[in-house]
Formats: sequence, structure tokens, C-alpha cells
Amino acid sequence: MKIGFLQMRSKFGEIKLNVKKALGLLERVNDAVIVLPELFNTGYIFRNKEELISLSEKVPGGYTTKQMKKIAKKNNLHLVFGLAQKVSEKVYNSAVYVSPGGKVDSYRKVHLYDREKLLFDHGRAFKTKSIKGAKLGFMICFDWMFPEAARSLALKGAQILCHPSNLVLPWGQDAMKLRCLENRVFGITANRIGVERRGTVRLEFTGNSQVVGPDGEVLISVGDRSESLKVVDVDISEADDKDINANNNVMEDRFPSYYSMLTRK
Amino acid sequence: MKIGFLQMRSKFGEIKLNVKKALGLLERVNDAVIVLPELFNTGYIFRNKEELISLSEKVPGGYTTKQMKKIAKKNNLHLVFGLAQKVSEKVYNSAVYVSPGGKVDSYRKVHLYDREKLLFDHGRAFKTKSIKGAKLGFMICFDWMFPEAARSLALKGAQILCHPSNLVLPWGQDAMKLRCLENRVFGITANRIGVERRGTVRLEFTGNSQVVGPDGEVLISVGDRSESLKVVDVDISEADDKDINANNNVMEDRFPSYYSMLTRK
Repeated sequence: MKIGFLQMRSKFGEIKLNVKKALGLLERVNDAVIVLPELFNTGYIFRNKEELISLSEKVPGGYTTKQMKKIAKKNNLHLVFGLAQKVSEKVYNSAVYVSPGGKVDSYRKVHLYDREKLLFDHGRAFKTKSIKGAKLGFMICFDWMFPEAARSLALKGAQILCHPSNLVLPWGQDAMKLRCLENRVFGITANRIGVERRGTVRLEFTGNSQVVGPDGEVLISVGDRSESLKVVDVDISEADDKDINANNNVMEDRFPSYYSMLTRK
Repeated sequence: MKIGFLQMRSKFGEIKLNVKKALGLLERVNDAVIVLPELFNTGYIFRNKEELISLSEKVPGGYTTKQMKKIAKKNNLHLVFGLAQKVSEKVYNSAVYVSPGGKVDSYRKVHLYDREKLLFDHGRAFKTKSIKGAKLGFMICFDWMFPEAARSLALKGAQILCHPSNLVLPWGQDAMKLRCLENRVFGITANRIGVERRGTVRLEFTGNSQVVGPDGEVLISVGDRSESLKVVDVDISEADDKDINANNNVMEDRFPSYYSMLTRK
């Protein structure tokens, strides 16, 4: 199975321009699972809730999802991309999934980062999606900080962590290597590049999008300069082998009964 | 508070020799928390259960713990060191704690690595210890692989992860940086160096003992060659600050109610 990422710059507020650019890159690939960055269609630094609402979209009815459904169908792609999802009065920082057949689902980011807390509502569940040949798990950017996110997805059977990101902290990509290793799953981190300035806020996105394997090794990556789409052919069943030697299995060796602290506040 | 590690070679089966070497290094330091390697007094590759039993010791009554109590008292040290702990018919891979005042406690390794499973009984709880000015949490070597171990300790209030190790896999030290970062605690990994050969089994221990801070940064480390004792003066209260920006706190931002998978098998 081919899996990969689309790394790009986004221009704040220019949804059609950003989507068009993504579609141009997606034209080049067929028969693959591709992850795009978090909020790839809008940019990141919303001045206030009103601005966020004005740039949010319904799923599946909104412009971005409709466009992505077209290319997914045309090129036989499973796509995972970030957008601001409007659900009645609430707005979520979501990862939308669209299938080649037109199915749509979304994960609403649980662990919101910094000012996102002032703008978005947080999601309330970790989510997986079975597609032909693989089970996807969804997490967004800062979810990497909490080992519970990737672990919950792996325990639900996710074989590939689909991780749309707008990473600005220096540790995210390295952390994902350990998240993949400790759960023995694949991970696709699709990050933005470039600088976004709005008023006094300036953020530099760190690029270095990557696909990581169950051994924690980086299978493909790019730097922090190029807008690109990269895919790698992997054997997804490797994520089902949780053994790390003749006596250890990272899932069977867990002792849930000693982990009771983890579900307490 | 001064915290640090003792990194050394151990000669298999030569308890008195190994303890003597450790004592020689410990003579040079006062008023500190020092972590020693896993099974530092016996070496690691036991041929069978009988050999393990013959090299195991009672705690606090055994030879090694008695010797460590003497130096702890003399130099005002809090020591954490690994040994094979005999408890009636069972043997645990334990981290023993001794205080300057002669108090003794032990943590029994929960996540046993590879052939350890054929030899040792596993522990059944994560453990912390309050000392003057800090709360210690205990984990041993391969416990690093399971994020639940460090997280459980941090949730119990541990400010310093004391991590006696015999690391042979390439990821342990890097993983501990993330364990410290994701929990915003200090971590002391004390590793062995050198090669141990017994029969057909050969293991090379990776050294690179380190003290990591709550930002995931390595505060002190050594390579994989020198037998040495290193300490660094740290402000333990940094581990109480779980904020990473004005809006995020790595503990308060957890959503235990969404983590129910973690306590299921």
C-alpha cells in the first residue's frame, strides 16, 4: 500500500487558492493514502472567533471537502486533511477523511494547542477508520504530546497514525518516531512550511513531514523548504506484528491493571 | 539539589568486586541523589534460575544493600541501584532505594525484557518515594518502552524518574527525553558500559548515561567508554511547573475520560 504526505505552504484565508495548490500536487498520485497538513485550507492564526467561523466549513457539505472528494474519486485516494469544521454553533479543529468512494468522516482534535483553546471546541473521542487493507487512526498536531492519544488509537487497532500538523515546537517529528515505535504502527506526519504573520503573532512551521515505520525508523521525509507530495510503498501488516523479540510484545506486555492512574484526573 | 548517575562496567558474578568499584566512585560525592545501573552488582546474563537465585540478595538484609547503606550514611546520599531481590521463593529485578538515614525501599521491575521473563517474577506496582525536597519515581531499563510507566509515576507526583538500566537497544536514551518532556519531570538514566559474554549470549551495553530536565533537554551525559560519576545541581521545583505555554499544561490538559482504552487489555 502506498502511503504518504503532502507538505505545503498555506496563505491565510485564501481557501480556494490553498485547495487549488493541494489539488495540483494530488493530481500526481494515484492509489494511495495521503495526509495533508492541519488547517491546510485556511491557515492557522485566526484573529478571533468571528474570523474562524467565517472560514470554517461544514463536513461533508463544505467547499473543501467537496473538492477533495472529487480528486479522491478521480485518483483513487484516501485523503486525510485538516480544516475548521463547523457543527451548528461549534467549530472544531478537525481531520477530515474522504474515501475514493465518497465516504466522509472526521476526527475532532482532542488536545488543543495554545490559542486554539480560545477559538475551537475540543473533540471528545479518538477515532479509527477501516479502509481496504488498513485501519487508519487520526490525531492532529499537538496530540503527539500526549502518549495516551497514539496509544488509544493503537489499542483500537489503528495501523497507521494519520497526523495532519502545523508543528512549531522542535520535538514533534522526533516524538512521532517514539509514538510509532512504542505502538509498532506506521505514522504519517504532514506538516506545513513557511511563516505566517498576523498582527503581532508570527509562527514558523517546521516542515520535515515524514512517514515513520513500526520500528521507529523514518521511511521518507522532506526538509522544511519544499512543497511536495511523497509516498512510500509499505507492507501494512508489519503493524500487526507487535513482537520486538522472542519474549516481548509491546501490547501483550502491557499491564492495564497497574495503569489505573491514567484514567484519573 | 544535586542529582546524578554512576556509570560502570560490571563483572558477572563478582558481587564484592562490583560493589567495591561502585563504592570507590561514590566516595567522591556528597549530598546528592545518585542512580546506579540495573543489576550493577551481579551483571546481567544469568545462565538459569539457579544461578540467578545464588546471586540474588535479600533487601534490606543482603550484602549489597548493607554496603550501600554505609556509604549513603557517610556521604549523605540517596542511592537507587539495581539488584536481584530475593523474596521467599521469588526473585525480582529490583531498584533498591537507600536513604542517608538508613531507610530502605525497593521497586520491582514491571516490564521485564526478553530472557528476564524466564528468570524473574515481575513487579505489580509503580512506586514513588518522598525524600527531603523531592519525590522520586522508580522505573528500570525496559520500562521506558511503555509510556504508562513514566506517566503513572508522574501522576503519582514523581519529580525525578530514577532509571537504573542495562540498555542494549538503541532508543532508550532518546526515549527518556520524551518521557521527561511529556511529563515535565527530571530523569536520571544510569546505564552500564562494556560487553558481557556468557556462553553464546553476548550483550553490549550502550552507556550514555544522562540526566534529562523537564524540557526534554540533556543536562549532563557521558559517552559509552568511561566509568564515571556525574552530578548536576538542579531546581527540583521546575518539575512542578507543568505549563508549556500560557494555555497548555501537560497534566491539566489530559482527558482521562477519553483514555479508557488504556486500562483494558
